[in-house]
Amino acid sequence: MSDQPQDPGRRRLLGAAGAVALVQGTPGQWIQVAQASALGERSALEQPRRRTIGIASFTPHQDLHGTITPADLHFERHHAGVPAIDPASHELLIHGMVDRPLKFSLAELRRLPSVTRICFLECSGNLFTQAQEKTTPQQLAGLTSQSEWTGVALATLLRETGVRPGASWFLAEGADSAHVARSIPLEKAYEDALIAYAQNGEAIRPGQGYPFRLLLPGWEGNTSIKWLRRVEVADRPFMTRWETAKYTEPLRGGRARQFSFVMDARSLITFPVFPAQLEPGWVEIRGLAWSGRGRIERVEVSTDDGRSWTPAKLQEPVLPKAHVRFCHLWRWDGRETVLLSRAIDETGYRQPTRDQLLAARGPGSTPYHLNPVTGWRVGADGQVWYRPEPWPG
Amino acid sequence: MSDQPQDPGRRRLLGAAGAVALVQGTPGQWIQVAQASALGERSALEQPRRRTIGIASFTPHQDLHGTITPADLHFERHHAGVPAIDPASHELLIHGMVDRPLKFSLAELRRLPSVTRICFLECSGNLFTQAQEKTTPQQLAGLTSQSEWTGVALATLLRETGVRPGASWFLAEGADSAHVARSIPLEKAYEDALIAYAQNGEAIRPGQGYPFRLLLPGWEGNTSIKWLRRVEVADRPFMTRWETAKYTEPLRGGRARQFSFVMDARSLITFPVFPAQLEPGWVEIRGLAWSGRGRIERVEVSTDDGRSWTPAKLQEPVLPKAHVRFCHLWRWDGRETVLLSRAIDETGYRQPTRDQLLAARGPGSTPYHLNPVTGWRVGADGQVWYRPEPWPG
Repeated sequence: MSDQPQDPGRRRLLGAAGAVALVQGTPGQWIQVAQASALGERSALEQPRRRTIGIASFTPHQDLHGTITPADLHFERHHAGVPAIDPASHELLIHGMVDRPLKFSLAELRRLPSVTRICFLECSGNLFTQAQEKTTPQQLAGLTSQSEWTGVALATLLRETGVRPGASWFLAEGADSAHVARSIPLEKAYEDALIAYAQNGEAIRPGQGYPFRLLLPGWEGNTSIKWLRRVEVADRPFMTRWETAKYTEPLRGGRARQFSFVMDARSLITFPVFPAQLEPGWVEIRGLAWSGRGRIERVEVSTDDGRSWTPAKLQEPVLPKAHVRFCHLWRWDGRETVLLSRAIDETGYRQPTRDQLLAARGPGSTPYHLNPVTGWRVGADGQVWYRPEPWPG
Repeated sequence: MSDQPQDPGRRRLLGAAGAVALVQGTPGQWIQVAQASALGERSALEQPRRRTIGIASFTPHQDLHGTITPADLHFERHHAGVPAIDPASHELLIHGMVDRPLKFSLAELRRLPSVTRICFLECSGNLFTQAQEKTTPQQLAGLTSQSEWTGVALATLLRETGVRPGASWFLAEGADSAHVARSIPLEKAYEDALIAYAQNGEAIRPGQGYPFRLLLPGWEGNTSIKWLRRVEVADRPFMTRWETAKYTEPLRGGRARQFSFVMDARSLITFPVFPAQLEPGWVEIRGLAWSGRGRIERVEVSTDDGRSWTPAKLQEPVLPKAHVRFCHLWRWDGRETVLLSRAIDETGYRQPTRDQLLAARGPGSTPYHLNPVTGWRVGADGQVWYRPEPWPG
């Protein structure tokens, strides 16, 4: 940045839009510089922030690119705050229907065979159901984020403890003062459950479960128990209050969805969205798509409120149970329209509309696991708005 | 952490090593908690830091996991400090042998078709050639790091400007006060050169070239010009002082390596290394491997100072021109030995020993592009040391 008056001629030249004459000179400017430092800070001009509501914080998707969420911008949802845990006085106990109950410290977990994978996490309540027009993707669906996680396969630990015949579930319990605890089918432990101690290359941060958390790729976020302190193997679910009072979803007709673990396929446009302002011409529509069931097979984009759909380009690598970045080049003609995206995963599942979800769940059903196609209205003035589709009840 | 006296009986129980009785009670402890915040901070107990020497900062590989380097721990090397640039007064000019010279602002680049990819960067001087025994991987070779980068393909911009017949090189010049400038063959622009404005999901930080940098996957770091302000297309290299006085490497016999762009395949053990202290038993040897020519095909590990080699496990996905994490489970018998790793890439190139490199380059040759197999000595007391192999001259 300049500390000196600038040459007005040069400023005029460089400030002009479009093509310029050949310019090889160097600006006659003083430049403020810093030396190398222990940590590379953000520019003062780029300060992405999570939006917080005390018990949760939301990832600012409209400000982000690619697929990795910086660790300090990863969403959080907790039930009793973020505990400050010293690994020196924290262990993971594995007991119940095992041959040898064992405890593991952070140091012990770090020495065991490690697994690294990129995957998303998403809260099952990741839809602001009463959103109005002035809603960003962060406010609408900021409770999903993605990291590269490293840890120990839970299966590795269960080989050490042994598992008794007949065991079919385990309880995972956190060390926060709410002691959040969920029952998980044992199959998930053998499929891909991790005890994760690192995120995006470094130690997991306190808000993500330091010193370690359970990580269940593709499953609703609350099952990836943070500050994990106990795994108890059993032959039935534990019916904790977290799965009776809370994470069970009443439907119409007196039925309920229980142990609704898997996050269904979803996509979310991140540009252009509120509060973007467009000019007519070429616009790259961008967004994220993900599925808890595996790989995203295809993302389709509509620029005419659903009358026609075109496959978007997916950025490689397309990983299972991971956010994938999609892009679609669109020429906006300056007329009002609505932009939509829908994800199709490798199982053939297609992201539903709000009306399809409503028909399946019924009005008044609990607003969990809602993954509707989301519309962004582009006004003739170029202003982009969220198109409200409130969930009744 | 506890603010209250703890139940000594419970502490004794949980403090015991190995198997424990079934314990379901909750600790009678007060827990210090925090609410959700705009940025998720690191634990006070986990404070990885770059080591700095003014003009450079080194990634702490011994503290990291997986393959993504957190943005604030990415290595830096600069020649005139980190300039503070306001994107409002910074543009990229593309001129020279083009049909239409054009300027691009950050806002304009962000609207163009985007590309996201994960790749490493490495300084061509990434070997501490006089390292002694008490050397960490950070001190030895901390000038390589990896990020997910997002930007615009340079090829996309050159389609806008047009390129005149006969053009074969371009100059890339930075806006730092050193005006670092390198000549790059035009083929690289069409192959995979990016103008990158985002790193690990967010805006590139000032130390990495904010508002945007050139990114040449697989090539020596100094060619990925930070704070990029100018690309000039030409029919020959520009022979800047950065490629005559500096990044050309004299060999024996009066010859020199010039335009030695590609980083050769290399691997680096990150555990166990100095200052780790081992106990006899199972140890997971871990490290990073990469090649500027494409994918890593194989990493081999020796636990007996090179008498025998075993393929290590590579963590998926194995991406081209990217750090890949390798792991190898080893049972240490308590006797003194030396650990080695060597990378083989998809072109068949095999990481050389120091002696092979010395035979090829000659004593007194400039210590750039040195990628020797590196030894870590494990003493009978379990202490791990770097095995010095100084580069003569």
